Amino acid sequence: MIPPDHPRYRSLVTREHLAESVKNGIVSMEGLTAHGRGEAFDYFLGERTTASALIAERTAAAFLMTARHPVISVNGNAAALAARGIADLQEASGAIVEVNLFHRTEERVRRIENLLRDAGADVFSGPAERLLPLSHDRAWCRREGMFSADVVLVPLEDGDRCEALVKMGKTVLAIDLNPLSRTARAATVTVVDELTRALPNITRACRDLTGEERGRLLQSLDNHYLLSEAIREMTGRLSRALD
Amino acid sequence: MIPPDHPRYRSLVTREHLAESVKNGIVSMEGLTAHGRGEAFDYFLGERTTASALIAERTAAAFLMTARHPVISVNGNAAALAARGIADLQEASGAIVEVNLFHRTEERVRRIENLLRDAGADVFSGPAERLLPLSHDRAWCRREGMFSADVVLVPLEDGDRCEALVKMGKTVLAIDLNPLSRTARAATVTVVDELTRALPNITRACRDLTGEERGRLLQSLDNHYLLSEAIREMTGRLSRALD
Repeated sequence: MIPPDHPRYRSLVTREHLAESVKNGIVSMEGLTAHGRGEAFDYFLGERTTASALIAERTAAAFLMTARHPVISVNGNAAALAARGIADLQEASGAIVEVNLFHRTEERVRRIENLLRDAGADVFSGPAERLLPLSHDRAWCRREGMFSADVVLVPLEDGDRCEALVKMGKTVLAIDLNPLSRTARAATVTVVDELTRALPNITRACRDLTGEERGRLLQSLDNHYLLSEAIREMTGRLSRALD
Repeated sequence: MIPPDHPRYRSLVTREHLAESVKNGIVSMEGLTAHGRGEAFDYFLGERTTASALIAERTAAAFLMTARHPVISVNGNAAALAARGIADLQEASGAIVEVNLFHRTEERVRRIENLLRDAGADVFSGPAERLLPLSHDRAWCRREGMFSADVVLVPLEDGDRCEALVKMGKTVLAIDLNPLSRTARAATVTVVDELTRALPNITRACRDLTGEERGRLLQSLDNHYLLSEAIREMTGRLSRALD
């Protein structure tokens, strides 16, 4: 259906996959729009992992590997785009994988959990409770999952929930292409990179980092610097674009 | 369903309206993602009409008012977001309103035409032919509509079609929030503004511009300057954002 001669072929194919995922009950329609926002930011980044994003990814891995109770929070978009990448990261990090949705129905939770299991993930499910200090369905999570976590990886997260998790004293590792979003600013570490590039980099770092490297990354973390660098990359590309 | 205390409430309500429009067969699911891209660019613009965008809007009005055969090309997103604004612009400019879709089915064309008619537009319909030099359904248009136009206003357009129209010798007035898109670069005049802000500004200029002002706007058109200004606005906001 999409002409292969279209210059944005890959982007259009991903959109079509996400549209299919709406039909399959994995992605919400609002998730399609959120994906589009991410596409625009990725376009500014040059659709590649920048040097500062790689530092953020390695720092996120250091946090996951030294956590007592790490949790990877998964929503519909993350599952549709990267179920296998999530399963790989779980294998490398030993983190709990838990589904948490903005547009929450039991049916969607079940479908996303099944998709993750089919990709090889060990999904932490069971009854959820309203445990986060938030209005709306974003408050739902599991007591032995996200609620008890010391470190939470939140790809493509809602800003309110990210802020609530930080206020609860948790270390929040965000993957967010918008360096100005509330999620990006509130998180402990913000990976400004596209999900399917970020996850394999974090997974690789979980496997490769020595104890000494971990310590150095944790000690030298400066999230303001990481965000500034992401913005500098974007403004640089924008400024040069018309030359 | 969306909590009114959410800081992005308005944006989320628009997304919900577009999601509804998918269910009604007006918007394609890929259109939701495209809308999300636009949202991100608008965020960089500060979600307001910039001074250079207003010049672009007044210049677009000058072209519409001096055209021999002006056409407003409408897709699903444009109809869902601004059917009334399109009808008003038609009234002010005398342009033909024609539906042209990327993801084309006869059923979608019919539904969008009905939505436009309900909003007061006089829609030019009838049998379409493959008249544009493009693969894919984008080639379809009507001989006495877009194919014969000297000036075409294309809100939220596919880059390929915009380039094809320019190659056919037409004056293309694009409304596109991405100043780097192929549509934005190929168009004769690029309005870098959000559709529901841009249309009323163009409509007002159609009613207000004197003959002398029209002539001055047409003569002083520098689309490279308009795009540079849009980029300068975006990089400025980005650079200041973390201060």
